[in-house]
Amino acid sequence: MNCLIIYSHPNPKSFNHAILETLTRALQERHHDVRARDLYGMDFDPVLRPRDFELMDQQKVAADVQPEQDHVRWADVLIFIFPVWWNSLPAIARGYIDRVLSVGFAYSQDAKGLLPGKKVVVIATMNAPQGVCEAAGVFNAMNITIGQSLASFCGMTLIAQKYFNSVASVSDSDRRKMLDEIILLAQEIK
Amino acid sequence: MNCLIIYSHPNPKSFNHAILETLTRALQERHHDVRARDLYGMDFDPVLRPRDFELMDQQKVAADVQPEQDHVRWADVLIFIFPVWWNSLPAIARGYIDRVLSVGFAYSQDAKGLLPGKKVVVIATMNAPQGVCEAAGVFNAMNITIGQSLASFCGMTLIAQKYFNSVASVSDSDRRKMLDEIILLAQEIK
Repeated sequence: MNCLIIYSHPNPKSFNHAILETLTRALQERHHDVRARDLYGMDFDPVLRPRDFELMDQQKVAADVQPEQDHVRWADVLIFIFPVWWNSLPAIARGYIDRVLSVGFAYSQDAKGLLPGKKVVVIATMNAPQGVCEAAGVFNAMNITIGQSLASFCGMTLIAQKYFNSVASVSDSDRRKMLDEIILLAQEIK
Repeated sequence: MNCLIIYSHPNPKSFNHAILETLTRALQERHHDVRARDLYGMDFDPVLRPRDFELMDQQKVAADVQPEQDHVRWADVLIFIFPVWWNSLPAIARGYIDRVLSVGFAYSQDAKGLLPGKKVVVIATMNAPQGVCEAAGVFNAMNITIGQSLASFCGMTLIAQKYFNSVASVSDSDRRKMLDEIILLAQEIK
């Protein structure tokens, strides 16, 4: 499987980065090809600008979007890794979707998905406890903003969503167990 | 009332811009003070970067965030106007929240809201029809990502949410009726 990881965390010492490393290793050990797009590391510009719309009208894309669409074309599975901020995605990840999964590439003008056969995995961390997030409806909102809704709009299949709560406050031992869950998750990617 | 409009649309000929103009005029006619932050016009940088976190640790904020926090301090009501993209906010608006409503300014380390007394209004447009968005749970997701959840996390009060559907496909006459609703909405801001 060609696995494209779209990774969005500003801190290379973060638990998100540990997830990225653990998942990459686990996928490679299972003989998958892995490409990681580190949106902060690339300084990706997440703002969909008037210029992008002009290019869309000409069936073109911006120079910095083209390689990203090539990665998506190559991928059998898109894996998003990010921290949940304000019950949502960081702006850099939000804008990656705005700019890269553009009309004519990811879906048609009449809302048909153009990426059939591809799979989606969402892995996200939250500082709040699970009960608080459940009561607030956060998991449901995530499913509507990036999980099931995003996958099906592009004709893709959501195969896993994994949310880790209280990541900043739990023990190191608990965080190691979370990374064990990532290794198990890698086995579901096939 | 001091009314701060946080406006996020790339096209100055858009219906969102008509909403901005109509609302500004209606509020000024009611003798409110209005400041509009045109995030595209300002080329606001929505990416919360390592530098922002370093500054937060020193109880400081970035040079481009400081004036935005001053505007929020000045405001009695924050009014967000934006198009819904991917059942969510455009990255530029998403990141305004990430960077401007920072810990120590909008909420405390122990999750207490620091902006009590302020009010919030959300006005957003969607190209999909209302029934489609309702079935997909979009309104609920918006309430969790920017409406009620954002307001209450900062100790503010959500006083109105207004969503306009099918804005690109309805008639000019229907769009004029939508702008009439904006004039009525302005009366609720008091």
